[in-house]
Amino acid sequence: MELDFFNRRATVRRYSDSHHVTDSELDALLEAATHAPSTGNMQLYSVIVTRDADRKARLAELHFNQPAAKGADVLLTFCADVRRFGKWCAARHAVSGLDNAGGRLTAIIDASIFAQQFVTAAEQNGLACCYLGTVPYNIAGFAEALELPAGVIPLFSVSVGYPEEGAPAPEPSDRLPLSAIVSRETYHDATEADIDVYYAHKEQLEESKRFVEENGKQTLAQVYSEVRYPLELNLSLGRQLLEAIQNPEK
Amino acid sequence: MELDFFNRRATVRRYSDSHHVTDSELDALLEAATHAPSTGNMQLYSVIVTRDADRKARLAELHFNQPAAKGADVLLTFCADVRRFGKWCAARHAVSGLDNAGGRLTAIIDASIFAQQFVTAAEQNGLACCYLGTVPYNIAGFAEALELPAGVIPLFSVSVGYPEEGAPAPEPSDRLPLSAIVSRETYHDATEADIDVYYAHKEQLEESKRFVEENGKQTLAQVYSEVRYPLELNLSLGRQLLEAIQNPEK
Repeated sequence: MELDFFNRRATVRRYSDSHHVTDSELDALLEAATHAPSTGNMQLYSVIVTRDADRKARLAELHFNQPAAKGADVLLTFCADVRRFGKWCAARHAVSGLDNAGGRLTAIIDASIFAQQFVTAAEQNGLACCYLGTVPYNIAGFAEALELPAGVIPLFSVSVGYPEEGAPAPEPSDRLPLSAIVSRETYHDATEADIDVYYAHKEQLEESKRFVEENGKQTLAQVYSEVRYPLELNLSLGRQLLEAIQNPEK
Repeated sequence: MELDFFNRRATVRRYSDSHHVTDSELDALLEAATHAPSTGNMQLYSVIVTRDADRKARLAELHFNQPAAKGADVLLTFCADVRRFGKWCAARHAVSGLDNAGGRLTAIIDASIFAQQFVTAAEQNGLACCYLGTVPYNIAGFAEALELPAGVIPLFSVSVGYPEEGAPAPEPSDRLPLSAIVSRETYHDATEADIDVYYAHKEQLEESKRFVEENGKQTLAQVYSEVRYPLELNLSLGRQLLEAIQNPEK
């Protein structure tokens, strides 16, 4: 098996200022991404391409000015989209069955699969990408900036560019051991001893120790649950996503 | 750009009876898939490997005995999983902020990205795959068959195998033109004339015309919205997924 690309890939957050992704390159990659599988081949997704400097700055602000957003050569925002399908049905004496939570959740999965095929195609062709998970922090903000109508839910952005010249090749970041992720036949519910094994590598990384110290916490799990992904934040993005999923007008 | 693989890939539903995917091949592919990006590198997903013949038969039944499920060499069921992370927090003097709709929706996106990296790695190494979107038709059935505890939501299965010997190379299926999927700067809301253009190719395919005729409908959109993905079905799977997403006990 040839798996080096997958095992060595890494997120890249800084891009070349001089080597730009052309429109034809971007279209070729997006076209390749549309060949990802989708539910019933319905392709319940859309992507908005942001190149305009002012709009990029506005989106970067909505992404809390993360370097990957601010410095993106191109910013793509991937959306779950049941609207196009609904318009097709309406134009063909049919009523879409997808403009509801079931259809929209299906669209979220389809859009994610589509995005990952884009990212793999881009990375295998020498481009660098970074997912930005900050879209659901302010769905209304993104919907306004990108003029998204009802039935189109922005999920995440991906920043794209050629890697910054002279930057060291990015190192793959740590991952949990396969035993943490894979169950055989039935779900293996981790014991406390398993948890120690699964997270041992991550917890002993210098970077992890620094996070713990810089944030004045005792454990890395506290950094995640109290600083990076606290309850209030997740409750807020859950409310926003559920509203978009459940409300036919959004 | 080298995009032939992506543009030519296709779903394959029939697998070799004699050439089996070994455990070490499967583990290597799953390991490669874990290097997909995930939110905050939290890897909020799990995968259940089904090889046991009886359990495979049971899952195939839950998948309505689709050939890809019945004939799978290995069946993988991908799950959104906030449980492992919660256990880690609990063992480290922290309280997970992810055991709620926000965390679970994030996990759905992470699991989908992980699955697509698996599928690409598998297909690029000569294996054949098929996503089975029928899991949310009966979440409780899959949860019981795979002994999934609270916080682990089954999303879809992927059947995997080597392609059936002597079968013709699968042809890529049709896709909407890129103009249907991609908007520049702001969302392009399709006009009725656009819809005609987007769906013209799909509608004139012999296979599409046969679907319309066999189902006694007037349009392909009616086949999708009245036969394949009707409203009642989507309402049911929306209810099931929303319950799993919103109920901390599930």
